[in-house]
Amino acid sequence: MSKLDKFIKPYVITSGKRFRLKDFDPGDTDGVNLDKDSGAAKLKEGVERLALLQEQLYAEQSRSVLLIFQAMDAAGKDGTIKHVMSGVNPQGCSVTSFKSPSTEELAHDFLWRCAKVTPAKGMIGIFNRSYYEEVLAVRVHPEFLAAQHLPHECLGKKLWQRRFEDIRAFEQHLTRNGTKVLKFFLHLSKAEQKRRFLKRIEDPARNWKFSASDATERQHWDDYQTAYEETIRETATTESPWIVVPADTKWFTRLVVGATVVNALEEMDLTFPTISAEARQRLQDARRLLEAD
Amino acid sequence: MSKLDKFIKPYVITSGKRFRLKDFDPGDTDGVNLDKDSGAAKLKEGVERLALLQEQLYAEQSRSVLLIFQAMDAAGKDGTIKHVMSGVNPQGCSVTSFKSPSTEELAHDFLWRCAKVTPAKGMIGIFNRSYYEEVLAVRVHPEFLAAQHLPHECLGKKLWQRRFEDIRAFEQHLTRNGTKVLKFFLHLSKAEQKRRFLKRIEDPARNWKFSASDATERQHWDDYQTAYEETIRETATTESPWIVVPADTKWFTRLVVGATVVNALEEMDLTFPTISAEARQRLQDARRLLEAD
Repeated sequence: MSKLDKFIKPYVITSGKRFRLKDFDPGDTDGVNLDKDSGAAKLKEGVERLALLQEQLYAEQSRSVLLIFQAMDAAGKDGTIKHVMSGVNPQGCSVTSFKSPSTEELAHDFLWRCAKVTPAKGMIGIFNRSYYEEVLAVRVHPEFLAAQHLPHECLGKKLWQRRFEDIRAFEQHLTRNGTKVLKFFLHLSKAEQKRRFLKRIEDPARNWKFSASDATERQHWDDYQTAYEETIRETATTESPWIVVPADTKWFTRLVVGATVVNALEEMDLTFPTISAEARQRLQDARRLLEAD
Repeated sequence: MSKLDKFIKPYVITSGKRFRLKDFDPGDTDGVNLDKDSGAAKLKEGVERLALLQEQLYAEQSRSVLLIFQAMDAAGKDGTIKHVMSGVNPQGCSVTSFKSPSTEELAHDFLWRCAKVTPAKGMIGIFNRSYYEEVLAVRVHPEFLAAQHLPHECLGKKLWQRRFEDIRAFEQHLTRNGTKVLKFFLHLSKAEQKRRFLKRIEDPARNWKFSASDATERQHWDDYQTAYEETIRETATTESPWIVVPADTKWFTRLVVGATVVNALEEMDLTFPTISAEARQRLQDARRLLEAD
């Protein structure tokens, strides 16, 4: 087991069996005896490694990576994407943020808007929120489900089980077609969310990051935690694990996410493409043409 | 005039009048007495400034920037995008590479596939090639035009003038709706292209970057230069200038592009959004709700 493997292992959930959210401490910084600055320095190394691996993924043009970020508000999704992925060539990386669905999106099945924008071969795709909202926010807010105008026969007790099944099948399909899917839950404590919200209210430069609805959404905290726990139980697999990332300490959150992505890319055994004998012959023809120029 | 303004001025074409490509030297590195390493160090400063400006653009959520890259093969489009834009948060930046059009794309008007993916408010959009291929590659290759199955009345002598007019109108529309459009022509010499092609053929790690068709495309060099010259004459405006970037020296190419983008963002006078008195009141209500929690 590599050093990286060992570092991320406590956070990687490959099976829902016996998974309980309360076994995970949002304030955990593991045995990593680092302060904020050395954490940032360590991350920088990781980001450089990531930039190189991404280049190989892009050159290979045969596989892709999908990183899904889910979390309660203020857990640091945007900051993590920024700090882990700035440094990567944006030509090989596409980020999609899923907000409240549009009328057109509501008129389609719940995977549709995400399925349209999965990463192409060679790309790292990032979903800032995703179809997982369909078993999280939509579960916590029955009025969101009502807005989907589902046919009568789709409703009922089995709705959520069927959604989990559809999600598992979708991710299996992606995996079978060359996309590595990693799902990050940034696990924040309720106390730390309060602290971060107050900071956004107090600091005028951060005001725009806070909407009053964030505070009312917080009142559904327990329902969300239950929904996350069941979602992770139902959709964690060896091929597409959930990573439950401690989110109370920002530099540690970023370190775990960065290490997980680097580790996944390293396990893909990427190599720069080699060309066929026939292609090599065509290159030599091209060389002669050029040299005569 | 700022220092940046002065540095980029020789390369910025805001009017087609009297524009001649031969007045521009692909080997130019201006009065910049830098070597490769200090060039890279200077670029790093620019990239950091760019990352900050992009954050403000994103926070503002009202305007956007579209950077269009056009060039002959091996002029360094991909490398420039990588070196100038790595460091920017990929959440605020989307790159689209336009390759040979698909059957669906050919079934639509020539702006369609690009118009669909212009940058949203807050975003920097990058087009690696663009609708400009429609007056460049399509002009050099009559067979590409034939594949577009245009109705008889659209063909004829005025086709290219009409395309230029449509492009000017499209960019004017984008500008009027808050998108700053900058068009970069990476201006490479024919001798330097030969040198770079040979390097790609000789170095196995670069083989995948070279396709034999690149060498045959080179045989249309003069036609392309003529098409570029006329395109720049017809579509350079004060609002959406062309930047003719010397491309024989990579570090200098990146410096000019980086400086142009930073300069454009600085001219936008970006500020972090402030909130209304009413919104401030809602923030205070939220604070009370939180503090009682």
